[in-house]
Amino acid sequence: MAVGTELLLGQIADTNSAWLGEHLAANGVASHFHQAVGDNHERITLALRTALARSDGVIMCGGLGPTQDDITREAIAEVMNVELVRDESVLAAISEFFRERGREMTANNARQADVPRGATLIRQAGGTAPGLVCPVGNKVVYAVPGVPWEMADMFERGILPDLRARMAEAGEEGVIASRVLRTWGASESGLAEALAGRVEALEGAGDVTLAFLASGIEGIKVRITARARTLSDVRALLDREEAAVRLAIDEGIGDIVFGVDDQSMETAVAGLLLARGLTFGVAESLTGGLIASRLVNVPGASAWFKGGVVAYDSQVKFDVLGVPPGPVVTESAAAAMAEGARRVTGADVGLGITGVAGPDDQEGVPPGTVFVGLALPSEPPQTRQLRLPGDRERVRQYGAITALDLLRRALDAPFS
Amino acid sequence: MAVGTELLLGQIADTNSAWLGEHLAANGVASHFHQAVGDNHERITLALRTALARSDGVIMCGGLGPTQDDITREAIAEVMNVELVRDESVLAAISEFFRERGREMTANNARQADVPRGATLIRQAGGTAPGLVCPVGNKVVYAVPGVPWEMADMFERGILPDLRARMAEAGEEGVIASRVLRTWGASESGLAEALAGRVEALEGAGDVTLAFLASGIEGIKVRITARARTLSDVRALLDREEAAVRLAIDEGIGDIVFGVDDQSMETAVAGLLLARGLTFGVAESLTGGLIASRLVNVPGASAWFKGGVVAYDSQVKFDVLGVPPGPVVTESAAAAMAEGARRVTGADVGLGITGVAGPDDQEGVPPGTVFVGLALPSEPPQTRQLRLPGDRERVRQYGAITALDLLRRALDAPFS
Repeated sequence: MAVGTELLLGQIADTNSAWLGEHLAANGVASHFHQAVGDNHERITLALRTALARSDGVIMCGGLGPTQDDITREAIAEVMNVELVRDESVLAAISEFFRERGREMTANNARQADVPRGATLIRQAGGTAPGLVCPVGNKVVYAVPGVPWEMADMFERGILPDLRARMAEAGEEGVIASRVLRTWGASESGLAEALAGRVEALEGAGDVTLAFLASGIEGIKVRITARARTLSDVRALLDREEAAVRLAIDEGIGDIVFGVDDQSMETAVAGLLLARGLTFGVAESLTGGLIASRLVNVPGASAWFKGGVVAYDSQVKFDVLGVPPGPVVTESAAAAMAEGARRVTGADVGLGITGVAGPDDQEGVPPGTVFVGLALPSEPPQTRQLRLPGDRERVRQYGAITALDLLRRALDAPFS
Repeated sequence: MAVGTELLLGQIADTNSAWLGEHLAANGVASHFHQAVGDNHERITLALRTALARSDGVIMCGGLGPTQDDITREAIAEVMNVELVRDESVLAAISEFFRERGREMTANNARQADVPRGATLIRQAGGTAPGLVCPVGNKVVYAVPGVPWEMADMFERGILPDLRARMAEAGEEGVIASRVLRTWGASESGLAEALAGRVEALEGAGDVTLAFLASGIEGIKVRITARARTLSDVRALLDREEAAVRLAIDEGIGDIVFGVDDQSMETAVAGLLLARGLTFGVAESLTGGLIASRLVNVPGASAWFKGGVVAYDSQVKFDVLGVPPGPVVTESAAAAMAEGARRVTGADVGLGITGVAGPDDQEGVPPGTVFVGLALPSEPPQTRQLRLPGDRERVRQYGAITALDLLRRALDAPFS
């Protein structure tokens, strides 16, 4: 249950509910309903009573701040039918927070120390408002701030342990954990086909499950979830299944797994460049800087990323990159761009990408046609032609990740 | 009310509810609750009954597709206590849709022609499932597909006219429209202060209101909403208030309005470059291609965007851009980068940006320190130092839009 009028007005998107849904599922907890409600006492209490009537537990995000429209504490107290009690230890922590920053604590800030009688606290790690664990009969209401990182931190430290204890009490004991294999280059049905044998093998046993999550321009995720008595048993199940899944994918489709869990395509590329001691430069036409801007977001990129040329105008391709004058949406132009990127930036490895984003043809070439060139050390450049679907923006995004994936595969294989 | 198990699992984010909330508000309709629910008949009907109990109207998104887990039609029929009737005209349209594409219409697809008795249709413009307008006593349930563009199209064509008719019947007659002024470079409190006089002048009258929407890396929006008897009256109110708001902002803060409604910073820059007949090139260190990739997303960018150099490594700044050897996070480096961008890409106008994204200092310069250089035709380069807040990613994003804004302001002013 997300609290805040700005959500109803569409001024900010509710990303917390999706995050919580994903993390609850990964821990074996089913989410049945999400709600969002504005900063209105009557409607918050109505929504909370509705939520408690149809669920065993409710997580509330937002409305714990210091201003007069932050009324989640009051709403919970009303639904619990208890009073709010000012917690002196929280009050001391808040006033310390302000003293350290040389600022005055206002009376409003003191409201953040109010706790419904019977609730326990999830201590703050950074902000001022603590989270709350509020028992309501056999059910429970958790309240955490709406700031995404505070919410995520309190979920891990305060909500998940309490949920696990409740699941153990209900006889749903054990540990659940999951691992995500991230893939690029296969369709969801292709992946499902390659893994049909694994899904069948796992059926009935019930301790390990597979799920496919299509994630648009970030590829398709395969999530392995395991349940066992102890964490080390869970890890062993995950390791065993990861090996089996990788083998099945490798045999059925090929080298399409680029990362695990939060690892992105650019961190995979970064790891391989670092491991091989190689530096990298890029020449972009179609993607217009998208590949470079993804790479510089990897911390420590300066160790391996030299830079790039955004050669949007053909004359820049000819003059700066040394592409021979003529058509520029061709394999040979992509190859020359890759070599040019290597030479201009002084890198060991160069990549070039040219193509037509649309909506119109260019040089008689239809939108979605893309050429990628890759120049590895002391090798002639390789090229690859792609046919990408979608509109202008999507062709660019697909082009960027596909080019990075070609680079990853090349760096993953032995070369002279 | 968003329908789909993938929403509860966090596999996709519910952007429809935010979009609907924003567009309902702009049309004078208050959203009190958002809900998301999975593809489960019992829980959809429970959520729909809850929604109808606490609201005058409900918009349902999703669950109208052809597969067995698309059960929104059945849930509405149950809540309306009517049967589903197959609509022959819809069935004909669906089978025509498949015939045109040379594909077979399956029995499942025919389910999309089922309509709860008493409902009226919102015809499809692109997909196969029509939208539904379902009266429930004095209240109403609208159902539209979850695909964002189909949802938005049916909202405009089918939901909004019906809502307006209901509002007119309830004595809330008239036309409501809004216009958004997009700003960059002021704080929300600064804007509120500059516009305090306008807010006060509008109070009581009730036909025009102002709202501030903080939109993170896209700046702060000022939304003007007007209500009147006719559309031309509403437009006149919006025009008058836009002029007054622009004047108050200009006098209080300066030239911070970069666009109207959906106009982005890059389209504003593109318009000014086109109008002055100038071409543009960029040299990026800190932003690593972010500025270039924003610019190439403007349709027709090839008319004015030449390209850029991503000079992440210092050696690339020296060798390619002609920055004098020495420290590279300085005003003079930014100026040299701007001139280098102009020279290397052959553009009329060049921009250079260098800085420290963090988390660590660089050359003894703290994170968030950014220098922007701007080289206009036949003028020595101008420079500007910025102090930007936030983490690595945010410093980069703020750097990119602030640099584009400096370019916009320079192009907006007369120069030799």
